[in-house]
Amino acid sequence: MRIAVVGVGLIGGSIALAARERGLGEVTAWDADPEALEAALDRGALDSAADDLAGALDDADAAFVAVPVGALAPTVTQVLAAAPPGCVVTDVGSTKRAIVAAQTDQRFVGGHPLAGAETAGVAHARADLFEGATWYLTPTSGTSGLLFERLYRMLAAIGARPEAIDAATHDATLALVSHLPHVLANALVSRAAEVLDAADAPMPASGPSFRDATRVAGAPSSIWTDIYLSNRDALVKQIDALTEHLQNVRGLLDRGDAAAITAWNEAAAACRRRLTGDEATGQELVEVRAAVPNQPGVVAELALALGRAGVNIVDLALHPAPDMSEGVVALWLPSAGGADQAQSIIESLGHPVFRP
Amino acid sequence: MRIAVVGVGLIGGSIALAARERGLGEVTAWDADPEALEAALDRGALDSAADDLAGALDDADAAFVAVPVGALAPTVTQVLAAAPPGCVVTDVGSTKRAIVAAQTDQRFVGGHPLAGAETAGVAHARADLFEGATWYLTPTSGTSGLLFERLYRMLAAIGARPEAIDAATHDATLALVSHLPHVLANALVSRAAEVLDAADAPMPASGPSFRDATRVAGAPSSIWTDIYLSNRDALVKQIDALTEHLQNVRGLLDRGDAAAITAWNEAAAACRRRLTGDEATGQELVEVRAAVPNQPGVVAELALALGRAGVNIVDLALHPAPDMSEGVVALWLPSAGGADQAQSIIESLGHPVFRP
Repeated sequence: MRIAVVGVGLIGGSIALAARERGLGEVTAWDADPEALEAALDRGALDSAADDLAGALDDADAAFVAVPVGALAPTVTQVLAAAPPGCVVTDVGSTKRAIVAAQTDQRFVGGHPLAGAETAGVAHARADLFEGATWYLTPTSGTSGLLFERLYRMLAAIGARPEAIDAATHDATLALVSHLPHVLANALVSRAAEVLDAADAPMPASGPSFRDATRVAGAPSSIWTDIYLSNRDALVKQIDALTEHLQNVRGLLDRGDAAAITAWNEAAAACRRRLTGDEATGQELVEVRAAVPNQPGVVAELALALGRAGVNIVDLALHPAPDMSEGVVALWLPSAGGADQAQSIIESLGHPVFRP
Repeated sequence: MRIAVVGVGLIGGSIALAARERGLGEVTAWDADPEALEAALDRGALDSAADDLAGALDDADAAFVAVPVGALAPTVTQVLAAAPPGCVVTDVGSTKRAIVAAQTDQRFVGGHPLAGAETAGVAHARADLFEGATWYLTPTSGTSGLLFERLYRMLAAIGARPEAIDAATHDATLALVSHLPHVLANALVSRAAEVLDAADAPMPASGPSFRDATRVAGAPSSIWTDIYLSNRDALVKQIDALTEHLQNVRGLLDRGDAAAITAWNEAAAACRRRLTGDEATGQELVEVRAAVPNQPGVVAELALALGRAGVNIVDLALHPAPDMSEGVVALWLPSAGGADQAQSIIESLGHPVFRP
């Protein structure tokens, strides 16, 4: 297999390192910055550096576009124009609606690995950067099932946990669980500095809460300005909702309403237990197979439906029939309960299910 | 030395365990709940359990009041009434203005260890709970220097880092670096649950930012309702300021102002580096001695002035002259720079300074 990496920063460089270490195939890269390309070669991340974009995509089976968010849309368009007909093309941008809406090519699958937002540059690239990390994929009804499967398996092979989600849900969710926490961290650290500077006081000793709450403050602007801007409508909505929540709490405090403050705090405790409880570990995998027509969008639909229901697909394989008219999707799920849930969801979509 | 502990929950139990383990003296305790007292005896935290409050304070040299914040003020008053003339009395409440304003007795020093807010009960008590933990002390101009020194050294002996601060600054600071982060954690986790419940969706995979930002959400209401209420004016002020900050950011996002968003994010990054940078480690201690009149408030004034300047006092000792008319305060500071700063501050207060 030939793998093209376009943009060898932290993410592109780590994809290249991981692909080579796991023996997925031959990695060729291109970067607009010759120094980055040179550095990636020096790190042993590449089999070869291409002279131009077209050279990197020559005979490629998979292409990863890992340029900054601001340059993503035009670069993906260029890559799709240059890539062979059977090449899956994906990106690694942190927001997905715009890029997915702009591309209708069945070879394109939007992607977003949850890894590495704290540093930048190929110097920090690591073969194990994606080990255990969720890697969101945003297939649409126009996405090729075969190419989606190829990408899915490559990501699993480099240790990531691919998870299908539609682009709008992805962006709304990330606004809530990532972009809003980053805004709050920035706000809190800025407010603290303002107060302490006004008093000419040093940072006081405090419990772990302040440090935890501000750990992601001031994440690299080279990445985050684009993230904030590309998802600003969803983020503004979450800021407004959080502001309203704060105003309600302010009202309880102002009234000195102990019972209501306790109820509010207990509700938060229950939410936290439910949302961030420890994930199940030591899982045993169960295989479920579904017979599906071999046409664009079917595998995506199935993966999206399972993702919406919170069913975690640990692995996935697609076996087309010889005439390519239909196929079998094999899924591996973390428990018998997950497998039962997957079976009933897939059957509700009209596909026969087998348990090997 | 005889040590009285009134209230043997997590904090009182840990003080008792630590005092016995470090051989500070004989520990006697009393608790309104006979089962808690029994459990503390069973854990080996006490030399003896008293039959009543007066019994615990009989001949005591130091008394720690570690009852819930709601019962703190009347209990401290009772303890001061029952304690011998030479007994230092302290509390462990998380807010300090009210209790300090209520007590003018020179034997009382308000206290607040930054430890253990996540769990409760003597079952979780540990001798090393305060190891390396800041323990705020809020002496006033009426506090006995001798008794303040005794308490200070006991806390250092059980591994804590005592730090003097005036009560109002303490409460304003904690509103900012502890109570506000707790409110934000509650708000964020509640908002996430609301969104996910509305979509009937499970908690999505996310980066570490959400988990970090919500780690302290729903801290025990038995402690936190009182904390929120006792500091509500300071907390409301911080909520308002944070809300204003969020509204400004919302405006930048709404206008899609990339340059302003980058500037905001860079400012936050600078604030974070400044406020939560790694503390200096591997410190060498420098001793500074000051000659002071032996009267209430002098040592407190000195410790407060150094605390305000961010000078970290690692250890402190007071040596009264034989006629008790004056004394020498010996301070140990973490570096030559800190010692120079301490010297100039103490001299500016009018006390001669020596370097041994």
